[in-house]
Amino acid sequence: MSRVYNFSAGPAALPEPVLRQAQAELLEWGGQGASVMELSHRGKPFIEVAARAERDLRELMGIPEDYAVLFLQGGATQQFALIPMNLAESGQTADYVLTGHWAQKAAAEGAHHVKVNIAASGEADDFTAIPPRESWRLTPGAAYLHYTPNETIHGVEFHHVPDVGDVPLVADMSSNILSRPVDVSRFGLIYAGAQKNIGPAGLTLVIARRDLLARAGQPRAKILRYAEHAAQDSMLNTPPTFAWYLAGLVFQWLKAEGGLGAMAARNRRKAERLYAAIDGSGGYYRNPVDPACRSWMNVPFTLHDSALDAAFLDESQAAGLHGLKGHKAVGGMRASLYNAVSEEAVAALVDFMGDFARRHG
Amino acid sequence: MSRVYNFSAGPAALPEPVLRQAQAELLEWGGQGASVMELSHRGKPFIEVAARAERDLRELMGIPEDYAVLFLQGGATQQFALIPMNLAESGQTADYVLTGHWAQKAAAEGAHHVKVNIAASGEADDFTAIPPRESWRLTPGAAYLHYTPNETIHGVEFHHVPDVGDVPLVADMSSNILSRPVDVSRFGLIYAGAQKNIGPAGLTLVIARRDLLARAGQPRAKILRYAEHAAQDSMLNTPPTFAWYLAGLVFQWLKAEGGLGAMAARNRRKAERLYAAIDGSGGYYRNPVDPACRSWMNVPFTLHDSALDAAFLDESQAAGLHGLKGHKAVGGMRASLYNAVSEEAVAALVDFMGDFARRHG
Repeated sequence: MSRVYNFSAGPAALPEPVLRQAQAELLEWGGQGASVMELSHRGKPFIEVAARAERDLRELMGIPEDYAVLFLQGGATQQFALIPMNLAESGQTADYVLTGHWAQKAAAEGAHHVKVNIAASGEADDFTAIPPRESWRLTPGAAYLHYTPNETIHGVEFHHVPDVGDVPLVADMSSNILSRPVDVSRFGLIYAGAQKNIGPAGLTLVIARRDLLARAGQPRAKILRYAEHAAQDSMLNTPPTFAWYLAGLVFQWLKAEGGLGAMAARNRRKAERLYAAIDGSGGYYRNPVDPACRSWMNVPFTLHDSALDAAFLDESQAAGLHGLKGHKAVGGMRASLYNAVSEEAVAALVDFMGDFARRHG
Repeated sequence: MSRVYNFSAGPAALPEPVLRQAQAELLEWGGQGASVMELSHRGKPFIEVAARAERDLRELMGIPEDYAVLFLQGGATQQFALIPMNLAESGQTADYVLTGHWAQKAAAEGAHHVKVNIAASGEADDFTAIPPRESWRLTPGAAYLHYTPNETIHGVEFHHVPDVGDVPLVADMSSNILSRPVDVSRFGLIYAGAQKNIGPAGLTLVIARRDLLARAGQPRAKILRYAEHAAQDSMLNTPPTFAWYLAGLVFQWLKAEGGLGAMAARNRRKAERLYAAIDGSGGYYRNPVDPACRSWMNVPFTLHDSALDAAFLDESQAAGLHGLKGHKAVGGMRASLYNAVSEEAVAALVDFMGDFARRHG
C-alpha cells in the first residue's frame, strides 16, 4: 500500500520529506557511522543538531533573545503541573480561561499547586464559543493567566491574542503552534506537546520569558524547575534526542516551505475549504462552533444522522482517509489539518464528503 | 562509511536488526499507510504495539502479575523525584546507599521530598568498592531503600541483590536492566532510562509492586502519580509512541537472541575479555574497581600516562571504535558494553588496545 491521508488529532501526520530523510539516515547519520539516536547527547554532533533546531525555531517564530526555549519531556499535561510550580508561590492565585477540554484539564492539574480562579468559561455553551474578553473576571496580581489558543477536541481557536495587561499570559499551543505567525513577546510562557505540529510524541516545547524563570516558585526537585533546564540548555538530563532531531527536520521543512506566513495562508485555505463544504451541505454535515472562533487545525463535525457514522468511518478509511473518528467527548467526526496535512488531502476529504452525502442522502 | 563499533555510555548502540526493521517500515507501518509515529496512541494498532512490548518485557524479566509496568517520560532523573513523592509520606525517612555519581544524584533529588538517610557510602574509597552489606545503617520503618545496581560512571555493579528485609528495595537499573536475569520479586520498584539497554532516549521504565502504588504519598498532580499512570496503562497522556515501539522491537530481538540468560553469558564473556586485557597489560591500562564489583556494562579505565589519552581517542576513533572517552568525573576512558555491543566489537577493542600499547610503549 502507499501512504494515506492522515487526519489524526495526534500523534499526527509528519511531513513526508522529513520521514524520508530520517529513513535514509536511520542507521548512519552525519558521517558518524551510527544512528543519531545512538549518539551521546553530550557529544559535539548531537549538540549541533540541538542548537540548529533551536536556532531554526527562533527564526521561524521570531522568538526574542530574552526568552528561553526548552526541549523537555512529559507532554503538555506535565506542564499543567510545572507551570504553577514554577510561576506561582504556594497559595497564590492564577486565572484560567476555559474554552474546552484541555483548558479544563490544565485548571484541574493547576489546582494542586495554585489557587485557580476561573476567569471565564464557555462550558454553558458546550464550548462552542469563546467568552468575550470584556466578560473575563481577572484577578489583580494573578501569578499568570492561562488559556488554550486552540482546543483540539472542541475545535475552538483564538484568532487574536487576548490583552490581559501586565499579567503573564501562559498559552497551551499544543495543537496550533507553528500553524501561523504569532507575536511571542505578548506571552509570558508558551508550551506545546510535539505530536501535532512539531514532531513525534515524547517532546514538549516550552518558550518562556527568562525573568519569569527567576521567580521563587514552590519547593520542588531540580528536574521540575524550568530555570535548571534553561541553565543546562535542556540537557539537565538525557533529552529525547531522536524526537529533538526530528523536530529540527520539521523546522527545516517549514523554512523551506516559506515559513509561518506561508503555512498560515495554506492552513486558512484548508480550513475554509472544509468549513465551506460543511456549511454548504444543507445540514448533512454540521460544525457547531461560532464561525468567529472556528479552528484552522481541528474541525469537528457531525453527520445529520449519527446512524451513518459507522459507514462514514468505514468508507473514508477504505478511500484512504484515516483518523477521522471524533473524540468521544463531542462525538461525530474530526479532521485535524495540521501543517503536514496537504491541501490535496483536504480536497480529497471534501470530495469524499460530497460523494458520501450523495450516496447516502 | 559503514557502522562503527559504538561504546557510548548512552544514548548507546541499538541492535542493528532493530534499526533495519524500523528503517524499512518508517513511512508505512503495519499496513496503516503511515509511520507508527503518526498513529494515535488511542487506536487499536498502536495499543497492540504497546501491549505486546509489555508482554514481551514481562516474559523476558519474569515480572510477576502483582507488579505494574509503566512506560513513562522524564528519564531516570525525574524518577529521583517521583519515587519519594509516590512512596513516602512527607517527612518520612528513606535509606540511600551511595556507590557512585548516580546514587548521589538520586539522594540529592530525593531530599526535596523525603528525609534521606545515607545508609552506606563508598565515597571514601572514590566509589571503587561497594560498602559491605553488614556495614549498612538501615532505618527501621524506612519508606524504602534506594540503591544503584550499576553505576554508569564509576563502573561498579552489584552482582547480587542485597537483602534489606521488609523495606521495599528501589533500584535504578538504568544501565544494567535486561543485561542478565533478575528476581523482580525481590524489589519494590525498579526503574530505568531507556537509552542504554532498552531503546532511544525519552522513555523510562518503571516496574513497581502494585501495593506500593496505593500508598498515600504526598500531595501532587495527577501526572506525577504512578498509580494514575498504572490505572491508565501508561496512557494518562500521550506516551512517547515511537520510543515505545522501538523498545518493543528490542524486546523481540532479546527473545530471539535467547533471552536474558543468553545475554548474561554473552555480557560476562565481553566484560571478562576486556578486564583480562586491562589486567594483563602490565599496568599500561588500569581499572581501579574492586574485582568483586566490577561492572559488566561500563568499564572505565585509565592509561598509565594520561598524556596518551588524546592519541588513544584519536586512533581508536580512526579505527572505528567510537564513544570511548571517559566521564570527566573519573577521567580516562570508558567502554560501555550494553547488550547491543557485540563480542566482535569487544574483540576489536581489545586488539586495538594491545596494538596501541605496543606502538606507544
